[in-house]
Amino acid sequence: MAVPTLEWKGGLPGELAMIDQTLLPGSLVVIKVKDIDSLRNDIRRLAVRGAPAIGLAACFGVVLGVQEFIGDRQAFDRRLSEVIDFLAQARPTAVNLFGGLERMRRTADENPDLDTPAIKQRLLDEAQAALREDQEICLELGELGQTLLPDNSGALTHCNAGALATSDHGTALSVFFAAARAGKTITVYADETRPLLQGARLTAWELKQAGIDVTLICDNAAGHVMKEGRIDAVFVGADRIAANGDTANKIGTYSVSVLAKAHCVPFYVVAPVSTIDMDTPDGASIPIEERSGDEVRRFGDTSVAPSDVKAYNPAFDVTPAENITAIVTEKGIIREPTTERIAAVVAGQGD
Amino acid sequence: MAVPTLEWKGGLPGELAMIDQTLLPGSLVVIKVKDIDSLRNDIRRLAVRGAPAIGLAACFGVVLGVQEFIGDRQAFDRRLSEVIDFLAQARPTAVNLFGGLERMRRTADENPDLDTPAIKQRLLDEAQAALREDQEICLELGELGQTLLPDNSGALTHCNAGALATSDHGTALSVFFAAARAGKTITVYADETRPLLQGARLTAWELKQAGIDVTLICDNAAGHVMKEGRIDAVFVGADRIAANGDTANKIGTYSVSVLAKAHCVPFYVVAPVSTIDMDTPDGASIPIEERSGDEVRRFGDTSVAPSDVKAYNPAFDVTPAENITAIVTEKGIIREPTTERIAAVVAGQGD
Repeated sequence: MAVPTLEWKGGLPGELAMIDQTLLPGSLVVIKVKDIDSLRNDIRRLAVRGAPAIGLAACFGVVLGVQEFIGDRQAFDRRLSEVIDFLAQARPTAVNLFGGLERMRRTADENPDLDTPAIKQRLLDEAQAALREDQEICLELGELGQTLLPDNSGALTHCNAGALATSDHGTALSVFFAAARAGKTITVYADETRPLLQGARLTAWELKQAGIDVTLICDNAAGHVMKEGRIDAVFVGADRIAANGDTANKIGTYSVSVLAKAHCVPFYVVAPVSTIDMDTPDGASIPIEERSGDEVRRFGDTSVAPSDVKAYNPAFDVTPAENITAIVTEKGIIREPTTERIAAVVAGQGD
Repeated sequence: MAVPTLEWKGGLPGELAMIDQTLLPGSLVVIKVKDIDSLRNDIRRLAVRGAPAIGLAACFGVVLGVQEFIGDRQAFDRRLSEVIDFLAQARPTAVNLFGGLERMRRTADENPDLDTPAIKQRLLDEAQAALREDQEICLELGELGQTLLPDNSGALTHCNAGALATSDHGTALSVFFAAARAGKTITVYADETRPLLQGARLTAWELKQAGIDVTLICDNAAGHVMKEGRIDAVFVGADRIAANGDTANKIGTYSVSVLAKAHCVPFYVVAPVSTIDMDTPDGASIPIEERSGDEVRRFGDTSVAPSDVKAYNPAFDVTPAENITAIVTEKGIIREPTTERIAAVVAGQGD
């Protein structure tokens, strides 16, 4: 993308520049984040969203939280723990948040001999490395995933698993970008993805910018569009994949998976290995964030329902492994995912 | 309802007073419709919507179109045909529109000896009779339908099949009103129903006014809510039921039917016999209205997607009979609907 989803500006001290995704597509505004209070709030209000992007924001967030710290290494490590604990409260579902924070903690643990200035630099280097790796992984996800998408086909995606959900390229959308690079003719149907319309605002914007044929639909039209034979495959991202393959993703993903199964349309989850949480045995163990009912009752500044009506607003749902044709990771494609097959790929022994 | 969905004001000439449903729930505004150009436009812009209400608006619309006519009976009949042909262009899917117009034509045909003033009065009387019948039918639909809804249960509904979609009481919502009158404790989940949010704006408003426990959800949360075990039955209305039971209703109804089937939740269509079109053999023969993509790209006055992105906006979809547990009509409940069972009930020989 011309403007990166997020990037570190300056050295130490520096700041995290991020696109404020709540303002897209109307305005492309880059915000400069300088402290962890702001960052945690920005993650909660979805200025930055998408599991891999949240993970990277957390890595840089750790740097933001410790870069001004003055004191010996022992005191630094205590500060580091406080920062990590604070940022871990941002959102509960996407495991990449915790993975990013854990990566930073491990970096500190593995470098006990560095003094405070040196470990600060080491942590910034680690965050930058995580960002570069994410870009490479996303490219690889696209190349692997596009082998599953035939030429002259229609695909459906839900929410935004694009460049904006990662450092670049995206996960599910990377498949479409790679298919286009490979010369395939594809049509993408984008679910608008209520309540916050990441499909309408972000996915439609990204695909249009990339010159990919995209058609926006209301979420509730997905079944009709499949029945009409327009969809040959579904590609979605993931916020957390349990050890058995059950996958938490944006609310509505589960419905799409049921519809895909009923129409014999393959359903693919595209995610880096870092989104797989081998410590979560199954979907029932994944914490599902419930957000304010105002997101449903209101749109922007417009009230669309009686202001005092109850609204239920789970931000995610869980698609059981049995509804997933394959999980595309940078280490390989896991078909008919099971705990054994997933563990093998995570360990680097998959196909 | 305190304010009726639609009612005739005055005698001849008179006017049709209708709630402008596009302004709910923010404003309760009654518009006075005096000519058929305005009425056809009001039907197209969904100021009045819902198959039975459209049918009644068409009946009164015929009166609006002929009430000022001066001339002999032969010339009157030509004018009547023009008015009917004009109003038939309002919207294509709901069969009640055509049924209402046909009822008025038949009334004229059956009274060839009435002079122009007398046939005008006869047509107004017929429209008023249709309105009273609709109220009685809707009450009966509720009483019959509520026998299918257990005490202490959760129900899901899509779009608005309430008092606002009829002259009063509603079709699917009449079931909930009747269950409440019968002392049952029920919780209703209302799909918000994008793009025009009839669930959020109208169903939530009606149920809340009636003191029924209602929770608003995004359309894409229906599968998750079923998976959580919150839904014991689905009740929806219909815009046209084909002879074989295939049912056109608001876009998204088909997806809900697939989800209900996957979760073993009974799926009920509640509609007057006048919504059954024995001349349409199956769902493939039902014309599906496609509306402007702006309804998807915009949310009220707010643009929510790139303004030049393609959007596909079918207003209805078709639920195949095999996904329908039963059709509730005022003449009886048609379980596992087939052409034979439907024909028997339409002929008054059902259960």
